[in-house]
Amino acid sequence: MRIAFLGLGLMGAPMARNLLAAGHALTVWNRSPGKAAPLVQAGAAAAPSAAEAAAGAELVITMLENGPIVEAVLFGGVDAAIPAGSIVADMSSIRPAEAQDHARRLAARGVHHLDAPVSGGTTAATDGTLAIMAGGEAEVFARAEPALRALGRPVLVGPSGAGQLAKLANQVIVGATIGAVAEAFLIAARGGADPARLREALRGGFAESRILDLHAQRMIERDFATRGRCVTHLKDLDNTLDAASRLGLGETPYTAITAGLFRDLIAAEGDPDHSALLLELERRNPARLEETTP
Amino acid sequence: MRIAFLGLGLMGAPMARNLLAAGHALTVWNRSPGKAAPLVQAGAAAAPSAAEAAAGAELVITMLENGPIVEAVLFGGVDAAIPAGSIVADMSSIRPAEAQDHARRLAARGVHHLDAPVSGGTTAATDGTLAIMAGGEAEVFARAEPALRALGRPVLVGPSGAGQLAKLANQVIVGATIGAVAEAFLIAARGGADPARLREALRGGFAESRILDLHAQRMIERDFATRGRCVTHLKDLDNTLDAASRLGLGETPYTAITAGLFRDLIAAEGDPDHSALLLELERRNPARLEETTP
Repeated sequence: MRIAFLGLGLMGAPMARNLLAAGHALTVWNRSPGKAAPLVQAGAAAAPSAAEAAAGAELVITMLENGPIVEAVLFGGVDAAIPAGSIVADMSSIRPAEAQDHARRLAARGVHHLDAPVSGGTTAATDGTLAIMAGGEAEVFARAEPALRALGRPVLVGPSGAGQLAKLANQVIVGATIGAVAEAFLIAARGGADPARLREALRGGFAESRILDLHAQRMIERDFATRGRCVTHLKDLDNTLDAASRLGLGETPYTAITAGLFRDLIAAEGDPDHSALLLELERRNPARLEETTP
Repeated sequence: MRIAFLGLGLMGAPMARNLLAAGHALTVWNRSPGKAAPLVQAGAAAAPSAAEAAAGAELVITMLENGPIVEAVLFGGVDAAIPAGSIVADMSSIRPAEAQDHARRLAARGVHHLDAPVSGGTTAATDGTLAIMAGGEAEVFARAEPALRALGRPVLVGPSGAGQLAKLANQVIVGATIGAVAEAFLIAARGGADPARLREALRGGFAESRILDLHAQRMIERDFATRGRCVTHLKDLDNTLDAASRLGLGETPYTAITAGLFRDLIAAEGDPDHSALLLELERRNPARLEETTP
């Protein structure tokens, strides 16, 4: 498939590489130049502008930082360059309402749009095992799906915007699970339980999760070097509260609490790993995970 | 090992059977008689009273409904019958402070005590794969561990009471994860995402958990037949809030919110499966998981 890939950041670069490895004809573009060179060595063409990359492409994939940047790229020349009937698959994490707006505006030019944000981080981007949550029309998804399979596991969850909503749902679950694990560990440790043994005891039971596996370990080691940014996570939760409010859902307590904890954490600690929700719960109480009551 | 097993309910009966299968000399007792017959057929001895079951036992295992019942059984004759130096392993889920009290009172008679509550339900009880969260002294745990291995995966998490605290931590994580999954699914579905495809899309990403696997499926099927009781879960969360307060931890938002949701759910719906937290979030908003905004 003739694919244009726009945005070669930490996520985009390994994703583009996987598309090349799958045999696609790839043209790449990145706002700050230089990122394209290793991909050109691997067989990609590089274009001097996003519009030139998109010209002639059957599928244009965008992997950019936020909604306004996606909008600036798509509607600053790309929209005029994409052939009618082609597909834009925006894999960036942006607001559902923005994705729906982009879809409507591209449709007016006869161009199809999928929102297709991902979860799994740079490891899954490199391994080609991303969770890909897609929103759009079934026929359009069916055409893009073979290419997306080179990047991970695409699932069409609903119409335009539903992929972005699914990504927000992912962030709600991940954030609240981190918070609940932190709170539970803090209580048990304060009462004398050893956090590392607690984690070991809970593994494999109903409390089992990727968070208990990965993030609880970071809490135990007090290793809050940033892998998942609090600032990004808070942005996603604020977008969730906004989307829920637009949908008439006023009571979303887990999202609201987690957003509040992240907001206070960022004010106190900057932008550590999201597992540092523990620090905010310690600050509020106050107690530290390794302290026990005599 | 000469083991007495007190309490042959839904959990206790298959656990006793696994101890027999592992070759232990087992004497069983249950408050309402009749439950012992199948175990006697499988090779156990049955005693007419808890005290007679405990006489001569090296290890007395209790699997009873709550703290007051454990207290009534242990200190209504069993305490006088157990040989000094023997071990009581209480696998019931009771309050940490009650477990510590039982340990102190048995120690005065030279009898050792472990709190060793479990997670995993009747399936894990039958398969011998329970998560066993133990609190007590390391030497005592080491003596009981080989027998406990016939029931699942025992981990000593700390001193007396720490096993019960670990069980409460388990319940906090499980309850809050159910609530967060329900809330996230409700938001995404209201915006047009298909719940079953959403679950499929999130599987294997950072949101992966036993809850996303099992309880989200129950929500999608609206199958709230009771497997995990709301009343039991609320009791555990109230015990957690009580334990946290005793430990000087006043801000435990995930536990508090989840307890509040369960309390209102029980008032409205009786005692459905704990995955019915979804119903309470739907009632508050109001929206149903399968309804989407046009």
